[in-house]
This record gives sequence, C-alpha cells and structure tokens, in this order.
Amino acid sequence: MATKNRQVLLATRPKGYPKETDFTLVETEMPSPGDGEFLVKIHYLSVDPYMRGLMNDVKTYREPIPVGGVVIGGGVGTIIESRHPEYREGEVVVGYWGWQEYAVSDGSGVHRFDPAIGPMSTALGVLGMPGLTAYFGLLDIGKPQPGDSVFISGAAGAVGSVAGQIAKIKGCRVAGSAGSAEKVAFLDEIGFDAAFNYKEVSDYNSALREVCPGGIDIYFDNVGGPLTDAVFTQINPGARIVVCGQIDQYNAQEPPQGPRLLWHLIVKCARAEGFLVFQFEDRYEEGQRAMARWMAEGCLTHRETITEGIENTPEAFIGLFTGENTGKQLVKVAEPEQQ
Amino acid sequence: MATKNRQVLLATRPKGYPKETDFTLVETEMPSPGDGEFLVKIHYLSVDPYMRGLMNDVKTYREPIPVGGVVIGGGVGTIIESRHPEYREGEVVVGYWGWQEYAVSDGSGVHRFDPAIGPMSTALGVLGMPGLTAYFGLLDIGKPQPGDSVFISGAAGAVGSVAGQIAKIKGCRVAGSAGSAEKVAFLDEIGFDAAFNYKEVSDYNSALREVCPGGIDIYFDNVGGPLTDAVFTQINPGARIVVCGQIDQYNAQEPPQGPRLLWHLIVKCARAEGFLVFQFEDRYEEGQRAMARWMAEGCLTHRETITEGIENTPEAFIGLFTGENTGKQLVKVAEPEQQ
Repeated sequence: MATKNRQVLLATRPKGYPKETDFTLVETEMPSPGDGEFLVKIHYLSVDPYMRGLMNDVKTYREPIPVGGVVIGGGVGTIIESRHPEYREGEVVVGYWGWQEYAVSDGSGVHRFDPAIGPMSTALGVLGMPGLTAYFGLLDIGKPQPGDSVFISGAAGAVGSVAGQIAKIKGCRVAGSAGSAEKVAFLDEIGFDAAFNYKEVSDYNSALREVCPGGIDIYFDNVGGPLTDAVFTQINPGARIVVCGQIDQYNAQEPPQGPRLLWHLIVKCARAEGFLVFQFEDRYEEGQRAMARWMAEGCLTHRETITEGIENTPEAFIGLFTGENTGKQLVKVAEPEQQ
Repeated sequence: MATKNRQVLLATRPKGYPKETDFTLVETEMPSPGDGEFLVKIHYLSVDPYMRGLMNDVKTYREPIPVGGVVIGGGVGTIIESRHPEYREGEVVVGYWGWQEYAVSDGSGVHRFDPAIGPMSTALGVLGMPGLTAYFGLLDIGKPQPGDSVFISGAAGAVGSVAGQIAKIKGCRVAGSAGSAEKVAFLDEIGFDAAFNYKEVSDYNSALREVCPGGIDIYFDNVGGPLTDAVFTQINPGARIVVCGQIDQYNAQEPPQGPRLLWHLIVKCARAEGFLVFQFEDRYEEGQRAMARWMAEGCLTHRETITEGIENTPEAFIGLFTGENTGKQLVKVAEPEQQ
C-alpha cells in the first residue's frame, strides 16, 4: 500500500484566467483516519467552472480556498480503511475531497454511490453534481412544458448536454450554443434540434433567431455575458431563465458591465432564477434514479473527457475556460478496481 | 350638455425626459356612441410612469402611441349615454380612455367600479391599477413571509406606498427609498420601519445596510438603475426581486449599461421576476375587496396628488419623473357628481 499522498495546492490566487503556475503539486504523508473517520482512495476528480469562483478572496456561498490549501473539488473513490461506524471498507463514496489522491473524511457532505447504477465516473457527471444540476435546474426552475422552445448556452458541457436531453424527453424543442464544430456535431448527435458555434457567429441576435425562430420560452444559461444579453431580447411572454452558470464572467478582474436586463422581465412577465444544486440535496436520489432509467432506455447519453494523472488536474481545469472539454471533464487519479 | 371634447395628443415622440411641447391640447367635436357603444364623461385621469414607454416607437407589450394620437392612459368616468346592451347611463367605469374629457367605448378593457367601496379617485389608485399592481406584485411574485425584510424603491409612489403597507400587514419588516424629506416622512407615517431619501445619500450600499441591517428578502423594485445594483449585493439567500418598474430608465436615449447582476441570483439562489398587472385580471375583484377591507380597518391608507384641468395633464405626467407626486398622481378633469 502507498505511503505517500499527492496533492494539488492553490499556490496563488489566479488573476483573470487561471494558469498552471497558480497551482503546485506536493507530496505529503499518507493521511490516517482517526476515530469516526475513514480513508478514501480517489479514482476520479471532477473539475468544474464554479471552482474558479472559490479561488478568489471573496466569500460567496462558501469560504474561498485558502492560498496554500488543497484545491476544493468533488471526487469519487473507494473507502480503503474505516474507523467510522456507518461506513465500511469497499464502499464507493462521493465527496469534496479536494485535488489529491487520498483523503480522510468524517462523512460530512459525503454521498454513497451505488456502482450498480453506472460506471464510477458517472458519479461525477451525469449521475453526479452536473447531471443533478441539469435535472433540477431544468425541471424545477425551468418548468418545461411540451412544445416549449428551450435554448441552452454552454450546451456541450457536462450540465448543458444533460439539460438539453432532459428537455427533449419532456417534449420541448431544444437549441444550443457551443464553442467548436465538434461540439455542435455532438449536440446534433444527442438530439438537439439546432445549434451554433458561438465562436463563428458575428451577430448573436440573428444566430438566435435562426435556431429559435419562435422565440425562447426557457433559457438555460451556463455562460452569461453578451450571449445572454441577446437571449433576453428574444424571450417569449412567460419565459423562465434558469441562471445556472456565468462562465463568461468567472475570470473577470473588473466587475463586468453590460446592458441593463431587468426591463425585459417586466414586458415579458418573465422570471430569472438562480440556484445551487445543494438546495435539492434531499432529492438527489430521485434525480439519479430518473437519469439512470433514461440512460438504460437509451434516451440520455453522456460524454466524458478524461485527463490522466493528478499532476494534470490544473491543465484540465484551465481547459474548461478555453473550451477543451466536450461533456464532463474528469481527471483519472487511479484506475477503479473492477466492480 | 357640452358639445366639444378636449384631448391631449402626442405631438412628437419625447427624446429623453418628456417636455410640455411633446404634447398638444386640441378641441374636437363631442363623440357620439354608435350601436353597441357608450359615451363616458371622464372625471379623473391617471398619469403613470409606464406611459413613457408607450411614447417610444417600440412595440413592447402593446403598440406604441401614434404621433398625433390621443395619449393612452387610464381614467374613471360616468356613462352619460349608452347604446350598449350591457352598460347603463350613470354607471361608473374605468378604462383606457386616453387623455380627454369624453370617450366612446364598446366596453373592451372596461371595468365597472362600485362607488360604494371608495371615492371615485381610488378607482385609479389604491383600488385601481397601482393598488392592484402592489397587491399582486407583493403577494404573488414576492410571496412575503412574516419576519421577511422587504425593501421598496420608489416607496412613496402610488404602487410602492401600497406595497409597503401590505408587507406590514403580512408581518414583514419594511424599508424604502424616496426622493424627498417629505416623502420619507410620509413613509414613516404609513408605518415603514425605515426609509432614506436617495437624493441625499452618497453611497447606496451603506444607506441600504442602515435601513436593512439583516439583508433583504424581498426587493420590490419600481426604480432600477444604480439603486437596484446596490440592492442585488445585499439580498439574502432565497430572495425574491419583484421587478415592477424601472423608472430610472424610461427616459434613457441609449440602452442603459450597468454591472452584470445575474451572478448574484446564483450564489443567493434568488429569483427576479417581472410582471404586468393584466396577467392577474381575473383576480382584480379579490384584490379590490382585500384592499377596501384593509382601508376600512385603518391599516391601509393612501395619498393622492391631484392636478386640476385636462390642460395640465402633460405637466402632471412630467412631474412623475422629477418626483413631484407623493402617492397617486391624478388629474381631475371634471368634478364627479355626488354619489
């Protein structure tokens, strides 16, 4: 058994876009669980855009990551030693272990993952936080009705691609935007009715009119910024704007400015609502079951981009902001044992 | 009986703030009702900020007022001649008659007003569109809970002053902003817990922290602009932003810019929702009854600012944007007969 643990620390607070030198890889002693704790061997780490916000020295919905601390992030692993009365060796668990190979936990914020419902990596993707974000965001905040016109920004990402497929399952017409021809092709593959590559478009307004000729009833927004400004001008009466992410702004060094948008909400009797997946924590199982069923029925597919090795976690994270990933971006830290 | 009608026409589309020369007073022949129509003698006209939007050459939720046309606006009057099977002479009716002394109508968009529930002028204020806007906006969009901290911008206006009092009735703590010391004193009189004069404040953030030390659960926004930007930074988790009006922007000649606000909705799991009172049309009677009861019980008071004479309607309208009115701004066109 290993005696060392490798960790990625926040070396310095990123200014603007994160760089590799903002992070540092260190080797430390293998942690040892105390009474009421267990030791997890991590197989996959998740890198997600929201982590960028936690790297600033600003309290949002949780404390910022301290400089010199292990970078916060979700992961899935196997318990290899337990001194906790409710967890046993061999159980697969999901938690905010941080960017490291091994972690000790007292069980707070931890969820068990049943390997029977899907491969372990899906615990961080379609059956994990991104999938649940899509599920509750679209269904509970967006409240789709058959025939609704849905537009999704960042549609080829881990959240957007699932949200779009759920919207199709619910009988909506679905269009989206993504950042490459490959991603647009992927959206076509998974059943989007229309999509455009926002990097190839000179005028968001006309691109939107083309993919959503009947206006927009639900906007699932992962991106924010000028694309969102354009969407606000094309919402239908009674529209719902699911404010899921604003990746366009996470690296801004000055408070981003833009046209004032609230007026559109009045004249369209529309609603913009933000959410965090944690507010639906007591319904995670409902979401996982629904999505596992849709996957089994073949109407929900998922894609993963997997980077190998803990040492490449910063690179994988940085790639989120340059559009490297299609679907869920993961880092494989250690091969999961055969289940 | 009079044989002439006086009307205020839109002479030209205002650029920025409206001026008296944007309007013109004309004398025309008294209109005559055809089959299925009735003739109304108007007693009070309403002037409201939303009318400014209808003076631009932009279709919003209704067509813009044509240049040379009678200015659109609500009024209350008495039917003095009827060839309509369902309306009788002597009935008091509220409708969008426009800025004139007499109007012919086929009954579309018309509501009867029962003079037993309040003076005729209240049909345009606390028991009319502004009161109903406050009622449905606060209760249906804001969903107040006892103990909620409510902040109201434009709090001394026809809508804000009613919304604040309803919030107090529902057990909330209520603070607001208004544009003069007299208005702030009026807010104190009608039971607001705290208020500030936004014209006397150098920093909205600290003014808000002072009047809402526990943050803001419901923001009833009549104003928009920099004050709203500051409120977004002080909302509590789960906050509801009732987007009722954006008077700060109605006279803008360029699309107004400001800090991007949607991010706040995510980290606070908050909702911003716009509405138009018309969407609650089938519940107007419920709202009127509730407010008439609260008035009778003494827990809802209202104030009116009344300008005399149809020829002074433009001046009364322009005064809305310079803060001349406390409570509901009306124009008395003709003395109502004793009921």
